[in-house]
Amino acid sequence: MSCQQTLTVNLSDNRSYPIYIGQDLLNDASYLRPHIKGQQVCIVTNTTIAPLYLDALISLLGDYHVDSVLLPDGESYKSLETMNSIYNCLLENTHNRTTTLIALGGGVVGDMCGYAAATYQRGVNFIQIPTTLLSQVDSSVGGKTGVNHPLGKNMIGAFHQPQAVIIDTNVLKTLPARELSAGLSEVVKYGLLGDKKFYHWIEENIESLIALDESVLTEAIARSCQNKADIVALDEREGGVRALLNLGHTFGHAIEAAQGYGVWLHGEAVSVGMVIALELSALMGKISHDEVDRLCRLLKKADLPTSSPNNMTAKQFLQLMSLDKKVLDGRLRLILLDAIGQAVVRDDASMSNIVQAIASHTAK
Amino acid sequence: MSCQQTLTVNLSDNRSYPIYIGQDLLNDASYLRPHIKGQQVCIVTNTTIAPLYLDALISLLGDYHVDSVLLPDGESYKSLETMNSIYNCLLENTHNRTTTLIALGGGVVGDMCGYAAATYQRGVNFIQIPTTLLSQVDSSVGGKTGVNHPLGKNMIGAFHQPQAVIIDTNVLKTLPARELSAGLSEVVKYGLLGDKKFYHWIEENIESLIALDESVLTEAIARSCQNKADIVALDEREGGVRALLNLGHTFGHAIEAAQGYGVWLHGEAVSVGMVIALELSALMGKISHDEVDRLCRLLKKADLPTSSPNNMTAKQFLQLMSLDKKVLDGRLRLILLDAIGQAVVRDDASMSNIVQAIASHTAK
Repeated sequence: MSCQQTLTVNLSDNRSYPIYIGQDLLNDASYLRPHIKGQQVCIVTNTTIAPLYLDALISLLGDYHVDSVLLPDGESYKSLETMNSIYNCLLENTHNRTTTLIALGGGVVGDMCGYAAATYQRGVNFIQIPTTLLSQVDSSVGGKTGVNHPLGKNMIGAFHQPQAVIIDTNVLKTLPARELSAGLSEVVKYGLLGDKKFYHWIEENIESLIALDESVLTEAIARSCQNKADIVALDEREGGVRALLNLGHTFGHAIEAAQGYGVWLHGEAVSVGMVIALELSALMGKISHDEVDRLCRLLKKADLPTSSPNNMTAKQFLQLMSLDKKVLDGRLRLILLDAIGQAVVRDDASMSNIVQAIASHTAK
Repeated sequence: MSCQQTLTVNLSDNRSYPIYIGQDLLNDASYLRPHIKGQQVCIVTNTTIAPLYLDALISLLGDYHVDSVLLPDGESYKSLETMNSIYNCLLENTHNRTTTLIALGGGVVGDMCGYAAATYQRGVNFIQIPTTLLSQVDSSVGGKTGVNHPLGKNMIGAFHQPQAVIIDTNVLKTLPARELSAGLSEVVKYGLLGDKKFYHWIEENIESLIALDESVLTEAIARSCQNKADIVALDEREGGVRALLNLGHTFGHAIEAAQGYGVWLHGEAVSVGMVIALELSALMGKISHDEVDRLCRLLKKADLPTSSPNNMTAKQFLQLMSLDKKVLDGRLRLILLDAIGQAVVRDDASMSNIVQAIASHTAK
């Protein structure tokens, strides 16, 4: 277990929790069991992940009362309708306030299981076991939970922190290449928004990351989680600095919404969103256009898209972005860069620059 | 405004909020407007209350962007399906994170509006304007929000505190007598569980309360709210003493569930639940049987039931109670009395005493 690392998300009111990162953690009960308080456990997973890891997880929980919910796989099922299958399982098996939910899966499973935990009997404990790179470096840490609504992504949700996050890097061996790339998009994000050294480290190690080199991967996950944990500790409920984690997300959400949830992967949409955000920062004179090109080269090496779909107009972007949570009383607040590794919230981008930034990175 | 009173619910992290109680508060914008932060307001009310008070409320909000959602009236609509009509209104009208929701109605409207506020974009502000006695003295204060699930009452929810509670005693003039009685049930509860002097005051003033005597009513509401606020301030998330507020509720919830939500009013079910809880306390030798009879006399003066429906068996009670949130890892925790004005949580009631207490107060 040479690569094993433990980080901590520091929060008030005894709500701090550990992030364990390493190989084979899913075969070791000692990471999991100290974080289960009662006698009941409900594992929330999906039909893709269950055949791979559900039995292993259940075998760690021999003497608990364990129920499992298998959700259909995909962003299109991240809905209140699907949520009801979790509530039904909990209620049919009379789970009480001391129950512990375990999210075994990617971002959709984690967000839904977390939201079920936030709202079942006004809040119960849960543990994140993320099985995609994207959920390992982003969505499993920080307590954002929720579901999509037909009229907007992540519009229904709650802040609810897990008791622990257990990241077994072994699971990435079964992850489709496209999803690995989508996860790398968020890894790149942490470098761009607040950690220039990490950004350059990613540029140097992108081939090893794509090749699933164990120690490089663990390092990338740990540095991403550390960046996220530091920001969450400063601003748990996104009153300020946490908004910077949304670099590329406002543009990205518009792409996801326009294409239908799940057609583009979240990380793919964020990849293009980051390119547009950097283009806009360049148009506003904050960074050089070379930096935009450099980002595009890195993203391409990670097999990520750098242009939005050719069926999307700037007008459609703006319409979809006006509903985004980052809009405050009519002002479009965007996460832009003052420099590589230095993101800021701005609401002074001109409409013409926004339109040009979008148009410059639309597929021909 | 001779009877106007202001109380405070003291909470950490700048979340303390005022409760305003008095006549004609709904005609005075100065109670409402300081608690609205952004430009957008969404009023959640129902089809019974809207014709009576919605226009008055909107007229206080002249320069805000105001939307309204009219829910169907009744406990049977306190569901995730109905909740979606609130989310739809917010999203269709692009309400953002600075929006303020206003609950104008009874407990169902307040619980649903509060839950919408807890979960829309991971939490927005809301204000309670309760229009029934029951919601004025109980559900509008303390931040419990949520909906029912076909398998259990209030099983889906969140703790989310309002910015203010505005109680206009005028609205009780349009309240059906049956609902006034249901509210008095919760007023009696505060006396029984923690305020013996208040309990005796209620006994002395029950006729004036039923007759809607303004100053007696304001006093009863204020003392109830003060009792609740004190307990919530000590234990916001029901880790301990707050559970005492559930006196009569575990038995009451079983009645509501068995009869179908809304057939019995919540306060009516709690009325019988309190009688059973006192009977059980008497069987355990904690209070005299005279106290049970005395409570029954008071409840009858308030036109409240003191026996459960004759189609309900003790077995059915126990089955429904095993799903109640007060059950912890198989142990049935009940709120009982050590004395009038002194409630405690106990898990040592014998099954035979529980069955006898239920059977003693079943309608013949």
